[in-house]
Amino acid sequence: MKSLTEYLWFNTERKREYINITRNVQELVDKSNISEGFVLVSAMHITAGVYINDAESGLIADIDDWLEELAPFRADYRHHRTGETNGDAHLKSLLVHHEVIVPITDGQLDFGPWQQIYYAEFDGQRRKRVIIKAIGD
Amino acid sequence: MKSLTEYLWFNTERKREYINITRNVQELVDKSNISEGFVLVSAMHITAGVYINDAESGLIADIDDWLEELAPFRADYRHHRTGETNGDAHLKSLLVHHEVIVPITDGQLDFGPWQQIYYAEFDGQRRKRVIIKAIGD
Amino acid sequence: MKSLTEYLWFNTERKREYINITRNVQELVDKSNISEGFVLVSAMHITAGVYINDAESGLIADIDDWLEELAPFRADYRHHRTGETNGDAHLKSLLVHHEVIVPITDGQLDFGPWQQIYYAEFDGQRRKRVIIKAIGD
Repeated sequence: MKSLTEYLWFNTERKREYINITRNVQELVDKSNISEGFVLVSAMHITAGVYINDAESGLIADIDDWLEELAPFRADYRHHRTGETNGDAHLKSLLVHHEVIVPITDGQLDFGPWQQIYYAEFDGQRRKRVIIKAIGD
Repeated sequence: MKSLTEYLWFNTERKREYINITRNVQELVDKSNISEGFVLVSAMHITAGVYINDAESGLIADIDDWLEELAPFRADYRHHRTGETNGDAHLKSLLVHHEVIVPITDGQLDFGPWQQIYYAEFDGQRRKRVIIKAIGD
Repeated sequence: MKSLTEYLWFNTERKREYINITRNVQELVDKSNISEGFVLVSAMHITAGVYINDAESGLIADIDDWLEELAPFRADYRHHRTGETNGDAHLKSLLVHHEVIVPITDGQLDFGPWQQIYYAEFDGQRRKRVIIKAIGD
């Protein structure tokens, strides 16, 4: 069994940002020389997410509005008694989930026509990390 | 390491439909001859999901109502400026998630008593695909 | 390829409860002797979940409130015609998702500084089970 472990670092300009990392993941799969296997793409922070959907700017704005509606910024989260102000970012992370597993077939991300991997930052403007780990043969 | 990669095609009669694919997945695990490993079941389209829950028709209707409440059809999604009308289907897909990993033990899906795998179509009436990929020994 | 399959049992005092199982999972990874691989942590019941987030009691109370807001207890779920009263627990399970995959690197859960694995019980006070399955080398 082969494996590859790499980390991507992000430091977004805005608090919330959605970054297409599909090409980065494919490049790491190339580097792994894995032909058949899985690659895990997983946020290492609890106020960020990773999801698969469309690379369409209107949809990304819709997703951002929708997350703010279902997991809004509020002053009164209990979590804020710790001094934090990012309770909403934790809930947004739970909602989109923090990780995806992508199948690797013939050395390629085995995707449908519109699937793209996004890093979803919900509490940015500081250095945060995603792990890319592939296993297979 | 053994691996198996197969695709299931769907073309649902209705726009939204929930299809129990547990048996299909077990048959492919049988075909893989994998005794210990994981099987990934993942929608290849960004307006469909895969989830694990109960095969009970009342609950499935509840899930459908609930998804429509939290990620409703609306005319004014920004995504619709592209000519699409399926913004809600993208959000529903994010909400239930597009994939599950199922453990394989002694060649069987290692499930609790009520766990069943569902393909959740949110923008049907056209051909769409799910990947089933198993790895293990 | 090595693999390890173990089950954790829970019987919570309250209907809803959030239990940090990070240490249990790391101990099983130690036992597996897997250095590089993945460990799946997956609820075997359809009214429970597994998620990764912060071990902070205020946040856990926020998560519980938030789940009750988005997937509330209601008397009139169709699922209740079967005699059950736990429709909300099924929806809460879908919302947080029932499983996570954790990367194993050098024999350790390869986590960021605040990531902890939680078993989320939504219909407790009876015996329920989680599968821990690791594969790798």
